[in-house]
Amino acid sequence: MLIDEVDDTVQRAHQAHLVARHVHPQTRAEWLGAVAAALEDHRDELVELAQLETHLPEARLNGELNRTVFQLRLFARELVHGETFDATIDHLDESWGMGPRPDIRRTNVPLGVIGVFGASNFPFAFSVMGGDSASGLAAGCAVVHKIHEAHLQLGSRTGEIVKEALAAAGAPSGLFATLTTVSAGTALVEHPLVRAVSFTGSARVGRILMDKAAKRAEPIPFYGELGSINPVFVTRNAGQVRGLDILAEYVRSFTLGMGQFCTKPGLLFVPRLGSEETQALVTAVSKAAPARMLTPQLAAGFLDGRATMADRDGVFELVPGGSGEAPAPALFATTVDDVVHDPRIIREEMFGPASIVVQYEDETELIKAAALLEGQLTATIHGEDDDDVEDLVDMLESRVGRVLWNSWPTGVTVTFAQQHGGPYPATTAASATSVGTAAVRRFMRPVSYQSFPDKRLPPALQETNVWGITRRIDGQWMPAQMEAK
Amino acid sequence: MLIDEVDDTVQRAHQAHLVARHVHPQTRAEWLGAVAAALEDHRDELVELAQLETHLPEARLNGELNRTVFQLRLFARELVHGETFDATIDHLDESWGMGPRPDIRRTNVPLGVIGVFGASNFPFAFSVMGGDSASGLAAGCAVVHKIHEAHLQLGSRTGEIVKEALAAAGAPSGLFATLTTVSAGTALVEHPLVRAVSFTGSARVGRILMDKAAKRAEPIPFYGELGSINPVFVTRNAGQVRGLDILAEYVRSFTLGMGQFCTKPGLLFVPRLGSEETQALVTAVSKAAPARMLTPQLAAGFLDGRATMADRDGVFELVPGGSGEAPAPALFATTVDDVVHDPRIIREEMFGPASIVVQYEDETELIKAAALLEGQLTATIHGEDDDDVEDLVDMLESRVGRVLWNSWPTGVTVTFAQQHGGPYPATTAASATSVGTAAVRRFMRPVSYQSFPDKRLPPALQETNVWGITRRIDGQWMPAQMEAK
Repeated sequence: MLIDEVDDTVQRAHQAHLVARHVHPQTRAEWLGAVAAALEDHRDELVELAQLETHLPEARLNGELNRTVFQLRLFARELVHGETFDATIDHLDESWGMGPRPDIRRTNVPLGVIGVFGASNFPFAFSVMGGDSASGLAAGCAVVHKIHEAHLQLGSRTGEIVKEALAAAGAPSGLFATLTTVSAGTALVEHPLVRAVSFTGSARVGRILMDKAAKRAEPIPFYGELGSINPVFVTRNAGQVRGLDILAEYVRSFTLGMGQFCTKPGLLFVPRLGSEETQALVTAVSKAAPARMLTPQLAAGFLDGRATMADRDGVFELVPGGSGEAPAPALFATTVDDVVHDPRIIREEMFGPASIVVQYEDETELIKAAALLEGQLTATIHGEDDDDVEDLVDMLESRVGRVLWNSWPTGVTVTFAQQHGGPYPATTAASATSVGTAAVRRFMRPVSYQSFPDKRLPPALQETNVWGITRRIDGQWMPAQMEAK
Repeated sequence: MLIDEVDDTVQRAHQAHLVARHVHPQTRAEWLGAVAAALEDHRDELVELAQLETHLPEARLNGELNRTVFQLRLFARELVHGETFDATIDHLDESWGMGPRPDIRRTNVPLGVIGVFGASNFPFAFSVMGGDSASGLAAGCAVVHKIHEAHLQLGSRTGEIVKEALAAAGAPSGLFATLTTVSAGTALVEHPLVRAVSFTGSARVGRILMDKAAKRAEPIPFYGELGSINPVFVTRNAGQVRGLDILAEYVRSFTLGMGQFCTKPGLLFVPRLGSEETQALVTAVSKAAPARMLTPQLAAGFLDGRATMADRDGVFELVPGGSGEAPAPALFATTVDDVVHDPRIIREEMFGPASIVVQYEDETELIKAAALLEGQLTATIHGEDDDDVEDLVDMLESRVGRVLWNSWPTGVTVTFAQQHGGPYPATTAASATSVGTAAVRRFMRPVSYQSFPDKRLPPALQETNVWGITRRIDGQWMPAQMEAK
């Protein structure tokens, strides 16, 4: 794709955004709803294309499409409910403590055109009409999406369906567009009218694009989800009470989808394994059926990383795993002592079906190990009711975006309280989430209106709550129905 | 200051933060209150020091101290009220649209140690215990403050008072610290334990530090407020009805405090001036009393910038202004046509007592001129009731953080709805504000807890609302008193 075409696409997107930014939230919600309906209408065609290009099973792809469609509808509900706007009204107050307060009101406005880089591992949920694109449209932005080369046909067809649905629903032409090729992606990050970029992919490529965004004459936010190892900690008690169950669940979780999840548990901290446990692990991993990975490049990168890990001092191959484009899952074992000696063991992500069991002698070692972790999307504790893990939770809270108890990090619910993010290198913006309703905030910014006549205020801020949204008034959150009273 | 000392200071701050992050909001509010009380107790001493170092008048400094103290108390109230935590609870929901939703709850946690660079132009409100430091402490962070060289004695004394007050209130030692020198400031931005930096100052220095923050192995957020020209637009009707009043207010606003405000109106767009209006402007500006600027460096930089502006084609000196460290205010005139020919006229900030009157023939030119503006903290419209300025408001909304109607941008109220920020180069993070209760959010990030037993959840998220804070529950905002019902 030529740079001129990128410019043309972004210019058209900008014009579309100028229309979209002012529509009633109900209208924008209807656009999202139309896209959701269109994806469902084309389900069979899309899932078939996705199967061909990603080698993922049909049931998984159908589930992912469900989630994608649900996400669009949840964002639409949030828009109509109004939380998206964070509307805040402070009335004139002559007695305000620092001196008279003028009438001042704040609402979120969309950033403009945003660039979204699709991921390889979620052909629906983190791709053409995945969470980032849905967030951008919900925010009132125009979205230019760089299709991941791992599923070009699916991406291109999804883009057509989305564009048709938006057009039929009356959205301005150009509000959503797709691009292909690496050079077009780079041009997108550098285009002056692009106001933010989101990205899900490797730490290497993410950092290159992040640096480009930071070096612009006018730097822009770069929301990158780069990588995460997702440690799981099993307490001594939990190991004693249900160690074999945990190990079986662990193998299921890290081999799920050939380990190609950003939330794959890449580390399991456990009390030193007995022979029964070791045998159970080896058997379970050896039985896990290999499947083709998403792309030959990913498979090659995975095998390289796995080989590097296998060579590290103190790392022992429990199950060596297979090779080729459908490598059988692998399992390594090490100890906290070895990790302390070489923290790279717990800092290098193997994106694919491999994980490391890290054995400890004493629970206090868990804190020591956790302190060596870099930023993570998730961390998990398996514990019993009377375990004292306060210090561990505390340590993890300082390093991750989501902490789980007696469950598994794969499977990320789309909801109000979700935080799918975390300190660098898990993401490039720890205050942001790429899943859940709060994801929309990434693509808006606040604007205040001071001493404005009511009729000139944006509808979200007019005294009569014309949009019927939740607002914070003089410091108090007011659901629309309470304002009406 | 040696780099070793910076490291020592940051290490101690980090240890203090580990204690501070878990205290009850009431306790943290008490720390803020203790600092506020101490500043008031030392008012005479501090104001006297500030007068010596900044040449600002006593009344202004007392007002600024009032604001600084009020800010600390407002942040304390917001903490106790709980909005600071953005606590969000989603209960387990088997019928959730995308498949069963686990119990998942999110709250904001402090980032850790933050670095704050004080400004020269607000020796209290944007300095040692100004908005950024207050935000950091309210967030639960430890704050290391780089004192601005323009008021080293005041900064150092304020730092002592703050540290004593915190110690007396029981806050952990090292929670607040000060640094001096440029090299210490640089070391602060680059220290691995520093998790965010805020800065108020020049675009040149700000960009240097921003680039350093972006180039770290682990990049961190950089909240910089760099510069703003704050255009004011007067409609033809407003000009006819009350043109002379507006011009008089304009001169008062841009000469206030020798123009050393980030919200100084640097541009006034008006219908072509008649001779009476020109004369009134010239008289008013000529009468404005000069005073010493904050520092000789600032004065020199101002005079350089003014000279560059005076040399631009199409820029006419209405009042040439004075020279030296107390330069008499200056006023320039130009036209929208000249600005279109050379947009640098409206893009180069003169930080000090100078402003430019930009005359137009036709109101439609205002949109054309506004489109040439870079990001701004504020823009203002003076208009009459039946003026049609919808397109102008729309254009400004896309370029600024705060839009004002029939008022003046100097004087920034500290409140819930304030947005003191704006697109680059006004700030480096348009989604953030450095004034108002939302400023605290810059120094926190969200963490979710999934399927956690109630007793292991942070207090903000436990089922019984132990802190009595406002929370969002299953999608609905619930003031604490409603939860209690």
